[in-house]
Amino acid sequence: MTRHALCAEPTHSVWDRSLAPRLRIESGDEVEIPCVDASGGQVWPGMSTEEYLRIDRSRIHALTGPIWIEGAEPGDVLQVDVMATRHSGWGWSSVVEGLGFLKDRFREPYLFHWHLEGEFSASLDPAIVPLRPFLGVMGVARAEDGAFRTRPPGPFGGNLDVRELCAGSRLYLPVYNPGALFSCGDGHAAQGDGEVCINGIECPLDVTLRFYLHKSQALSGPLIESSEESAPDLSSDAWVVVETGTDLAAAARAATGRMVDLLVSRWGFSEVHAYILCSVAMKLRLSQVVNEPVHTVSAAIAKQILPQRQLFPISPR
Amino acid sequence: MTRHALCAEPTHSVWDRSLAPRLRIESGDEVEIPCVDASGGQVWPGMSTEEYLRIDRSRIHALTGPIWIEGAEPGDVLQVDVMATRHSGWGWSSVVEGLGFLKDRFREPYLFHWHLEGEFSASLDPAIVPLRPFLGVMGVARAEDGAFRTRPPGPFGGNLDVRELCAGSRLYLPVYNPGALFSCGDGHAAQGDGEVCINGIECPLDVTLRFYLHKSQALSGPLIESSEESAPDLSSDAWVVVETGTDLAAAARAATGRMVDLLVSRWGFSEVHAYILCSVAMKLRLSQVVNEPVHTVSAAIAKQILPQRQLFPISPR
Repeated sequence: MTRHALCAEPTHSVWDRSLAPRLRIESGDEVEIPCVDASGGQVWPGMSTEEYLRIDRSRIHALTGPIWIEGAEPGDVLQVDVMATRHSGWGWSSVVEGLGFLKDRFREPYLFHWHLEGEFSASLDPAIVPLRPFLGVMGVARAEDGAFRTRPPGPFGGNLDVRELCAGSRLYLPVYNPGALFSCGDGHAAQGDGEVCINGIECPLDVTLRFYLHKSQALSGPLIESSEESAPDLSSDAWVVVETGTDLAAAARAATGRMVDLLVSRWGFSEVHAYILCSVAMKLRLSQVVNEPVHTVSAAIAKQILPQRQLFPISPR
Repeated sequence: MTRHALCAEPTHSVWDRSLAPRLRIESGDEVEIPCVDASGGQVWPGMSTEEYLRIDRSRIHALTGPIWIEGAEPGDVLQVDVMATRHSGWGWSSVVEGLGFLKDRFREPYLFHWHLEGEFSASLDPAIVPLRPFLGVMGVARAEDGAFRTRPPGPFGGNLDVRELCAGSRLYLPVYNPGALFSCGDGHAAQGDGEVCINGIECPLDVTLRFYLHKSQALSGPLIESSEESAPDLSSDAWVVVETGTDLAAAARAATGRMVDLLVSRWGFSEVHAYILCSVAMKLRLSQVVNEPVHTVSAAIAKQILPQRQLFPISPR
């Protein structure tokens, strides 16, 4: 096994199988990558919202790669083990007009800065947000010729934003091109299911990845072997908002909106802080998808994230 | 606090605010209810699929109630604490033509019987399914006049099928009628997110519920305070299938289908057993709902449910 180091830049912000590989490795090798944040270093601690609005959004997600895996061919499977992640003490989340799951409600641009301490952040007072750093984007070059924006994920991986991809987890991807051409970026110190406000805790993230090649294996899309071995201990005790409806997206949106309302009315968060907290810490589940025509979606926030509250105190009789 | 006992039958299978209360209680009281299974006792251990097809489906969900809570009025909130649940060692799951999340793939009727031992079932070999009993249906009478089938849930609760509602959890419901008129049933010894095959582990379930009334509280739909204190320990290590697409329901369906495929190809389950396992144990999450137009859905099965497998063994170089 060989250890490689790949500096983050120059980054790229499209999937394009004609990009020249920046590193060639063998199956079994490990690569250290100090990924820049999703803005490609355009956002800095203390930046104002006004300054943030002027960043070049075409540079998002600022991926590092491609990495060529020797011997990889279409029809193989690339295994990516996330060995370690290290944030650098700082991150950001934003609200951008026209983006986000509640974009009709949250139109005012906003940039929030996080101070990250070890496995938790106390920046969004009074919440204590557990950190589970992972890369929002890991993928291989797409099967098609051309340059594709990185926002849409696909069977090649890419902008999956699956919070289970923290250290200790493994990602399996189908290979579509010789060398596989792996790239990654979009570090998140934490992210809820849905990433509802459009961002997790966006941050520069040093990662150590190990790659294995599996020849001629059937795989039609990303598969993850998840682990929480490195995650801060999070109990399952939670506040859960339940919404029902005939349209899953509408029900999920309503549940998210009600969770924002709950955080505002009962814990005193500002609206936008509640929205951001949902984006970095809320779980969003399809509880029931078969009682047609009405389905159930649940939005949950772990109790340990919030100060203890008895929402409906029981008065002595 | 007064303890009451309410025998399960006669049951009812519609929401109708004109139904006469079977029990009147005060806020703070506890009620023991030995709920029948969702079929209303029509399914029994060892029943054949042919016999199952002849049950009267209009009797599903066979709810017990209504319970009148003294002093409850529209605009109040009813708190239901799930104090304890006790299965009776047996349950069933079925596939019914025309129902279920993968109904185009699974058309053949099938009835599966579970033997339940304490906190686990080993009936669906080689899976070990952890049991977390809860009631699929808990609700108050709807605001409208008339008799409504119980399949669709709503702001009044009802057929929510939220797996977090196990013992130790609390459900808060808006009150729409004098006395609230609470009913419950549809015991599940276990259920995955989505309840994809149409059933959890359907079973008779003895429950102990405690009720509290909160006067004049704003609540627009069900809210749960969840707890896993009584649940078998389930680690978060999991196999996670990731699907992306522009339609959340289609992506969730594709992820469920791929999980069925994985269980069949790698663990040797029959197709229908894999489907049932997903229905009673799979988690279904909206990982990302903001990278328009393509969203991400994850379907996960905890590793401890399955025999250990290295899906892609690493060969020495």
